Amino acid sequence: MAPNLNNKKAVLFIIDGLGDLPPTPLQNANLPNFDKLASGGITGLMSTIDRGITPGSDVSHLQIFGYDPHGFYPGRGPLEALGLGIELKEGDIAFRANFATVNPKFEILDRRAGRIDTNSAKSLEKEVNMKIDAIEVLFKSSVEHRGALVLRGKNLSHEISDTDPHGSGSVLNSKSLTKSSSAKKTAEILNKFTKEVYKKLNGNSLNKKRTEQKLPPANIVLLRGAGQFKTVPTIQEKFGISVACVAGGALYKGIAKYVGMNVVAVPGATATKDTNLKAKGQAVLQALKSHDLVFLHVKACDSFGHDGNFEGKKAMLERIDRELLPVLMNSGAYVIITGDHSTPCIRKNHSGHEVPILIYGKGERSDSVQKFDEISCMNGGLGHIKGKDLMNIIIDIIERGKMYGS
Amino acid sequence: MAPNLNNKKAVLFIIDGLGDLPPTPLQNANLPNFDKLASGGITGLMSTIDRGITPGSDVSHLQIFGYDPHGFYPGRGPLEALGLGIELKEGDIAFRANFATVNPKFEILDRRAGRIDTNSAKSLEKEVNMKIDAIEVLFKSSVEHRGALVLRGKNLSHEISDTDPHGSGSVLNSKSLTKSSSAKKTAEILNKFTKEVYKKLNGNSLNKKRTEQKLPPANIVLLRGAGQFKTVPTIQEKFGISVACVAGGALYKGIAKYVGMNVVAVPGATATKDTNLKAKGQAVLQALKSHDLVFLHVKACDSFGHDGNFEGKKAMLERIDRELLPVLMNSGAYVIITGDHSTPCIRKNHSGHEVPILIYGKGERSDSVQKFDEISCMNGGLGHIKGKDLMNIIIDIIERGKMYGS
Repeated sequence: MAPNLNNKKAVLFIIDGLGDLPPTPLQNANLPNFDKLASGGITGLMSTIDRGITPGSDVSHLQIFGYDPHGFYPGRGPLEALGLGIELKEGDIAFRANFATVNPKFEILDRRAGRIDTNSAKSLEKEVNMKIDAIEVLFKSSVEHRGALVLRGKNLSHEISDTDPHGSGSVLNSKSLTKSSSAKKTAEILNKFTKEVYKKLNGNSLNKKRTEQKLPPANIVLLRGAGQFKTVPTIQEKFGISVACVAGGALYKGIAKYVGMNVVAVPGATATKDTNLKAKGQAVLQALKSHDLVFLHVKACDSFGHDGNFEGKKAMLERIDRELLPVLMNSGAYVIITGDHSTPCIRKNHSGHEVPILIYGKGERSDSVQKFDEISCMNGGLGHIKGKDLMNIIIDIIERGKMYGS
Repeated sequence: MAPNLNNKKAVLFIIDGLGDLPPTPLQNANLPNFDKLASGGITGLMSTIDRGITPGSDVSHLQIFGYDPHGFYPGRGPLEALGLGIELKEGDIAFRANFATVNPKFEILDRRAGRIDTNSAKSLEKEVNMKIDAIEVLFKSSVEHRGALVLRGKNLSHEISDTDPHGSGSVLNSKSLTKSSSAKKTAEILNKFTKEVYKKLNGNSLNKKRTEQKLPPANIVLLRGAGQFKTVPTIQEKFGISVACVAGGALYKGIAKYVGMNVVAVPGATATKDTNLKAKGQAVLQALKSHDLVFLHVKACDSFGHDGNFEGKKAMLERIDRELLPVLMNSGAYVIITGDHSTPCIRKNHSGHEVPILIYGKGERSDSVQKFDEISCMNGGLGHIKGKDLMNIIIDIIERGKMYGS
């Protein structure tokens, strides 16, 4: 990695689910600092993947970081597992996992085991870690009923179906999705796991107590989003710069780890509306001391979009404007602000509409746009860019790009 | 195909040859409804294939419908044949065909057999349908001297040259364009066909009568635009929505059939300047009841462009504004209006200039553009899109897109 001689640094701030449909929260909120950045900088619109394409957050972040998801998307499981701090090895199969409640016929009575509290769930972890045939089963719980599970051993495959029925019904038998012997074997392991983990969890004293208390016992683990982990070239190797991540959500920390960023631990960064933005701002300043680029992520705007909560999304943007932007503006770093996709409140879901983007910093070009929103940025000097362009633009701004040709 | 739960629908209105060079018909025409749609919607410019590329109507429509012509263009023949209602089978070789007049040396005396009337041509169909060796020859006439011809049988190839000299001269011998035995065989069949069809047509009583009346007999069929038919994934399969087609021209109906749209029969839809726009509007409303998307096509603007008829193109646009747009605006569906390519009157031919595009409908983003023309749309909020983007954008607007990633 070439040394940073010019000391130009950047913050890439991704506001999850930022874009919306009119009248949009960005249009309606009082955002003096966003507007100051838009006035002093250059703006535009970005489609993370391509025009009209609705991306998930995993795929869109990978693309923004320069990893074409068509080749580099490992599935959701490995990204969540990495985000929970599980150290994955080449070939591991990882899943999103959650505790649920079933009866002895494996019919689901509660998909979230009554939203079991985080500490109780943590105490059940030991029952889920086990060995089946020669395969290690590693499990880590996160918040409430959620967690990640990893299968480690030889000849495993991610081409198997979920045991989670994604709704009501019974725990599903995992099936091989191909004719490969490794997929067949992996599905068998999973089905043995379902029986084994029920036996262990159902007999656990905490669950017996929950049953006595008329609380749903967390007596099964449902699995979904299988993916096989393999190492990829790091973002440092690809772009020749050092990158840190300041995020609260496990998925985002997982993506950052997957691409080789240094993930900074930030107390109070929760990926919810109550996240400690001031702590995140301080973490960014700290990380800028030893990194060329800091990826900063705030999740709550997307969650408000999914809930159809316009006022919540608007208030969150105003909090970001107040509590986070002054720190970034005074950091001396170039500031790039955008979203990973639109989550229009009226849709309560992601959409393919472009997200606004702004780039602010000393000596860069500026356009005539004065406000940061979906409509104003239509007139921005960046025009319409794609997610795949963004890392190259950032690298160029901080003068760390390599010349193509001579 | 997933059910349409939100009941959002769209009309994709393609005005053939819409784009022009300044002063353009769109700029000069009085188009209050186009301008209302532009003011209330979002606009931009589109290159169907790529910037500066001049597409034919066949290729541009395929690309707009999401079929990359590099892999999915079957040649003009199969599309015309499908449009005339011939049910093609996998492996069929289809041609554009037209009646002409030759002397016994096969020298062409009239390329269009004196623009023989449609009914007379229809009565000659039976002489052209025949069997040569084990190959079936199917022929269907359309308007005046025009028609389509299909070869059906084993081991046929489209890699053969036309028998139509595309001008004056003699009927050409078809030649194999490759060394394959199937191409050699197909060329031989065609050359036998030329001799056979001359014999039959020349002896036909109607042609004898035409000769007596000093009218050119339709005593030969010239063939061009060979292509081999193969089935492709339907637009329903690709995008998960049901699509209907309202068009007058055989080519457009053929493209619609090729990609699996339901082609609606519209009495009075002629693909000429006299086409019944009100009937087409009613057909769109009817089709919207049972489809998610209706493709509406009007041909005459392109024909006026080819004729260099500025006033004609302008008047046609005004007629569309008056007779068709109010129906679309009040249909409750999202309205997308664009062209398949530019046909500048001054060029009397297609060009590679972008075409204006507008998207109008409840809750979508809107820009500040107030007029629908090539120059105003330069400032549109869509920016510059490609034909390949359009279906994804439409699918996203009616909320039928699938998420990429999770």
